[in-house]
Amino acid sequence: MSDRFHFTLHATDGRARTGTIHTPRGEIRTPAFMPVGTAATVKAMLPESVRATGADILLGNTYHLMLRPGAERIARLGGLHRFMNWDRPILTDSGGFQVMSLAALRKLTEDGVTFSSHVDGSKHMLSPETSMEIQRLLGSDIVMCFDECPALPAPEEDVAKSMRLSMRWARRSRDAFGDRPGHALFGIMQGGVTPELREESAEALKSIGFDGYAVGGLAVGEGQEAMFGVLDYAPGFLPTDKPRYLMGVGKPDDIVGAVQRGIDMMDCVLPSRSGRTGQAWTRRGQVNIKNARHADDPRPLDEHCTCPACTGYSRAYLHHVFRAGEMISGMLLTWHNLHYFQELMAGLRGAIAGGRLDDFVADFHATRAEGDIPPL
Amino acid sequence: MSDRFHFTLHATDGRARTGTIHTPRGEIRTPAFMPVGTAATVKAMLPESVRATGADILLGNTYHLMLRPGAERIARLGGLHRFMNWDRPILTDSGGFQVMSLAALRKLTEDGVTFSSHVDGSKHMLSPETSMEIQRLLGSDIVMCFDECPALPAPEEDVAKSMRLSMRWARRSRDAFGDRPGHALFGIMQGGVTPELREESAEALKSIGFDGYAVGGLAVGEGQEAMFGVLDYAPGFLPTDKPRYLMGVGKPDDIVGAVQRGIDMMDCVLPSRSGRTGQAWTRRGQVNIKNARHADDPRPLDEHCTCPACTGYSRAYLHHVFRAGEMISGMLLTWHNLHYFQELMAGLRGAIAGGRLDDFVADFHATRAEGDIPPL
Repeated sequence: MSDRFHFTLHATDGRARTGTIHTPRGEIRTPAFMPVGTAATVKAMLPESVRATGADILLGNTYHLMLRPGAERIARLGGLHRFMNWDRPILTDSGGFQVMSLAALRKLTEDGVTFSSHVDGSKHMLSPETSMEIQRLLGSDIVMCFDECPALPAPEEDVAKSMRLSMRWARRSRDAFGDRPGHALFGIMQGGVTPELREESAEALKSIGFDGYAVGGLAVGEGQEAMFGVLDYAPGFLPTDKPRYLMGVGKPDDIVGAVQRGIDMMDCVLPSRSGRTGQAWTRRGQVNIKNARHADDPRPLDEHCTCPACTGYSRAYLHHVFRAGEMISGMLLTWHNLHYFQELMAGLRGAIAGGRLDDFVADFHATRAEGDIPPL
Repeated sequence: MSDRFHFTLHATDGRARTGTIHTPRGEIRTPAFMPVGTAATVKAMLPESVRATGADILLGNTYHLMLRPGAERIARLGGLHRFMNWDRPILTDSGGFQVMSLAALRKLTEDGVTFSSHVDGSKHMLSPETSMEIQRLLGSDIVMCFDECPALPAPEEDVAKSMRLSMRWARRSRDAFGDRPGHALFGIMQGGVTPELREESAEALKSIGFDGYAVGGLAVGEGQEAMFGVLDYAPGFLPTDKPRYLMGVGKPDDIVGAVQRGIDMMDCVLPSRSGRTGQAWTRRGQVNIKNARHADDPRPLDEHCTCPACTGYSRAYLHHVFRAGEMISGMLLTWHNLHYFQELMAGLRGAIAGGRLDDFVADFHATRAEGDIPPL
């Protein structure tokens, strides 16, 4: 059994769940936050540092990797894990979302999407079949179906049409994926903010059968209220014995709300991107280290945080190195942010296991409401 | 005795020396290479990683730190060591060299140099007295005299005039430094490529008395042959019982030649700056990781190197992340370069202690002459 991908549910608290995803490359504790390693690196971090923050799994972007350095090249070099020196699980997206948002001159047909690379203008094709092949070449542990979704708000008939295309692509993805022991294929539910479309999508996916199910088409401009509105019912359409993955989410309060609503996995560039632009996330909310108020502040970002940035450096130092354009600024703030996100996940897992999620969430919001520590 | 700065000479081999500089903040094994932490960070590195490469001491730049974040601010925050999270020895330069090469609108008088900041255009003054005060505020363990030197080649009378001004400034630096147990003040020999001027400068410094002596005014455009020409005689003018520091050097073969000629300490931005521009230094010479020949190469930069870049990553990966503009490129190559430089120093120390420096140097040149490994 050890080489089979499977999910064990340990405890629930309300709709929230905690469990373990077992893979041949290691266990993933859920709810899990997956740092994003777009181009075979979590920006500004060494992989051992990412692991030290508590991450069990990374996300890689098929779109970026197929264009540079190329999936065939990565396969020749032993696969993405070896290439980027990360031996634990990797989930790859299908490229579908990013080809629609990043590529130039894209053209969508029933077959797939043709597009020009944003790197060098070269022509490429992504379809359910090519996406499965590229993710296989990368050696991804969790492969995502190739899908398509409109930005929200969008007319319901556009959302329905897009969802049904994605369901036909889900079938083709499943067929192309085949049987790969130890590797998982996740379906992606679409349907925007319309319950009937979400249910139709979930039924279509379940009839195909997947190792896990993503809630797609959120975090695309609809706002937290609409997102939580969908999460209030959509996870209920999915099997309870498979992991549920909310793609592209999110801010700490998005994460907490999603976990409360039964989500097991999430990913977002936020902690790493914020770290490179001088934004830190703490229990007390966001800190803009660029602000002049930090220039003489000898205190750490968060005195309770055990990350290297908080145990070794003052706000004054972090302010200085950001202003001076030094790489250590992005390195330390990214580490802090990833550490904070993983600590939040560990807190959520413990609270669910202990049946005290409501108290944990109340504390989470109360501490944030206090805001950052006042200037000295 | 433990809180006193002193130098112990362990062995010599020809003119080369190996020893230990004892400071209250730790020992410095000589010959020593000091990575440069210009703005309170060795670029692209965390301080614990710099230490892991084998560095016993860092260099900080007075000119940069006085302008941003300011010496008084660093003093209020507990000094440079605490500010940058490095508790081992730090040497600071005097600001003299950099104010002449970097500042705008500088004006030199007997008293010192007035200049405008390259950061914000603000007016500043550096003199022997202000340089000593700034280095005291930073908390530097090894303080350098404030001096001045012309770029080479220069007319001998300009070199002589400049050297004599620097010697008057050395006297003022010594007086301003005062008595600071546990902290050292180094004099800086000038005199260009003229033996008589070098000797005059050395005699002036010895009559004042310093804890160590730098050979200044080299690595300023004169070339390796001229530099080695000076090093063939100039260290002989200095006391044998004090450390000798060659400022701003250099490439690996410069370092080896300087150590053969009796130099104990060196510093250079080369390993860190090269790392950020895709240049690696190995036993076999320089490797330009940008080169397309590396794109599919599964081999490490140097199969014998134990640094994280060489034990975890292929040339293909390093090529990819450099091309993609990823921060991990500068992080890994800087680490490798600093590791290689420190390994070279350890090799030189061991060879001198074992009386086999000639063999070590012959091997060093023979391995470099082989050049980088051929493409697969």
